[in-house]
Amino acid sequence: MNYPLTGYHHITACAGGAQEDVNFFTQIVGLRMAKQTVLMDGKVPIYHLYYSNAKLEPGSVMTSFPYARKRGRPGSGQVQSTTFTVSKGTLPFWKEHFTRNKVDHDPIAERFGQSFIRFRHPSGLSFEVMEDKDDSRPGWVTPEIGKGESVHGFHGAVLSVREVEETEGFLTEALGFRKTGLDGKYHRFETGTGGANKTITLLHEPDRRAGSWTFGAGTVHHIALWGADDDALAQQKAIYEELGYTDASEIKDRFYFHSMYCRCPGGILVESCCNAGAGFYKDEDEAHLGQKLHLPPWFEDRSSQIMVELEPIRVPETATHAAA
Amino acid sequence: MNYPLTGYHHITACAGGAQEDVNFFTQIVGLRMAKQTVLMDGKVPIYHLYYSNAKLEPGSVMTSFPYARKRGRPGSGQVQSTTFTVSKGTLPFWKEHFTRNKVDHDPIAERFGQSFIRFRHPSGLSFEVMEDKDDSRPGWVTPEIGKGESVHGFHGAVLSVREVEETEGFLTEALGFRKTGLDGKYHRFETGTGGANKTITLLHEPDRRAGSWTFGAGTVHHIALWGADDDALAQQKAIYEELGYTDASEIKDRFYFHSMYCRCPGGILVESCCNAGAGFYKDEDEAHLGQKLHLPPWFEDRSSQIMVELEPIRVPETATHAAA
Repeated sequence: MNYPLTGYHHITACAGGAQEDVNFFTQIVGLRMAKQTVLMDGKVPIYHLYYSNAKLEPGSVMTSFPYARKRGRPGSGQVQSTTFTVSKGTLPFWKEHFTRNKVDHDPIAERFGQSFIRFRHPSGLSFEVMEDKDDSRPGWVTPEIGKGESVHGFHGAVLSVREVEETEGFLTEALGFRKTGLDGKYHRFETGTGGANKTITLLHEPDRRAGSWTFGAGTVHHIALWGADDDALAQQKAIYEELGYTDASEIKDRFYFHSMYCRCPGGILVESCCNAGAGFYKDEDEAHLGQKLHLPPWFEDRSSQIMVELEPIRVPETATHAAA
Repeated sequence: MNYPLTGYHHITACAGGAQEDVNFFTQIVGLRMAKQTVLMDGKVPIYHLYYSNAKLEPGSVMTSFPYARKRGRPGSGQVQSTTFTVSKGTLPFWKEHFTRNKVDHDPIAERFGQSFIRFRHPSGLSFEVMEDKDDSRPGWVTPEIGKGESVHGFHGAVLSVREVEETEGFLTEALGFRKTGLDGKYHRFETGTGGANKTITLLHEPDRRAGSWTFGAGTVHHIALWGADDDALAQQKAIYEELGYTDASEIKDRFYFHSMYCRCPGGILVESCCNAGAGFYKDEDEAHLGQKLHLPPWFEDRSSQIMVELEPIRVPETATHAAA
């Protein structure tokens, strides 16, 4: 059987304040500010901020809903960490970078033979930089982070689950991943060629209480896997429905892409998505990406109301203008 | 806030063989055979069999997918028991009835002051008859079960959860239920006037391993709550999406009703549904309900293929013809 989803597109978390989120992703992680828009569900105006590597590639796109209005409860059934790849030998730089910027972080650790440092977003969200010798996707350059140290994109998400078995069944049977390793509490699953951008890791935490599934600051809302086109999403939806995952959503128009969501056993929300036309380049060109707020056409009639309800943010110029 | 779902419509389980399912629901539980149709998702032909009280009322409709092709795994995150109401003083009859028919059952027990007997479907599914002095919905009469002892409809479902908190949040915040009692491991939630057909009970089983979410014999697939019309479903979908339950499905045409599904924290699949036009009377009148297989119009072109793949069943005449 051919499975339609080939790797990550984006990972979306609920942050707290918008400005601290911008500062964290553009200055600490060193991502590019790729798009400013809004959450397209619900009635309350919430930012949807996109950050990425230099080429705005699927599999490098971290996004956030700054959701200071309500805290989420971290726990199992959630993404425990989002892992970015960096080049071999750069962790000493990152350790120094986190220390200099007073970012809460852990000592260098290792799983499946790869070294990583876990560090925290101001809202409590957990991220990792992991050395990966095979990943050469182009990182964004900032005043503090040079080309050699920059983040290539996602290695993947680490999902906390109280039990492995049913989540494993979903990953293999519904998504076509294969189990490729066990390292202590970590169970690794890969798709296609494996490695960066093709890996989902389960962290088995049998005693960890369940986290919340609603929007709430300090929790990841979903991971999004990428398919080629609308047919891929329809095919994935059919796989879900044949198996009995009947909650799989309709294919939604997210303006820049199309999306379909399904809850996976264990609790993590999994989006399937594909580009819609020119994708992120639909409403701004390369030279202007991420510099101002864009609303989808169907929000334009209430744009003035939306604007006043959002926290004003200042995006560092170096997050939207490539270094010379 | 007004919530749009007012009680149960149906509860759907995956059984094993079709004939043993028919025998169990019509002869042991004494329900009416209300409709024979097929599962409307996926490519594999699977029966969808409907059983109900005498009036085929929402809140009395037990349905099954005979899914002998694959076993499910019972566990937490599933409906642990489906509870039917019977009149006060009838449990001695039911105990005798189960014994006479060699149905696996437990001794009379009690929760929240109501006596019940738990008994097992041939596939292992668990059901209960619970005495309820306030429920006068008309039961179906069989040669073995008279009007006085017959099943009125659902009291409700008992959901097994490893943790109560997040499921409780869903029931109260997304569905508008209120917590009305705690009795040992049982947490009771009610909506509207409460009582029969308005109750969801959580069974707190912190150490029980998670069951499967896919179609599989011996597991309940979903509970379905009832709203007045399509607007009610759209309203419920908007509530889900505003909160962040983004997997809520599109509103699906199930021919007899319209349906929308969402996974609730803890793991149980919750359908919201409303009648479509004449509902179950769309394709057969009262005198002919449940007597033969009906396919929705969009399945008619492959009806001969579907027919040959289904296990032939014989429905007892007394399950479709009211006693004089």
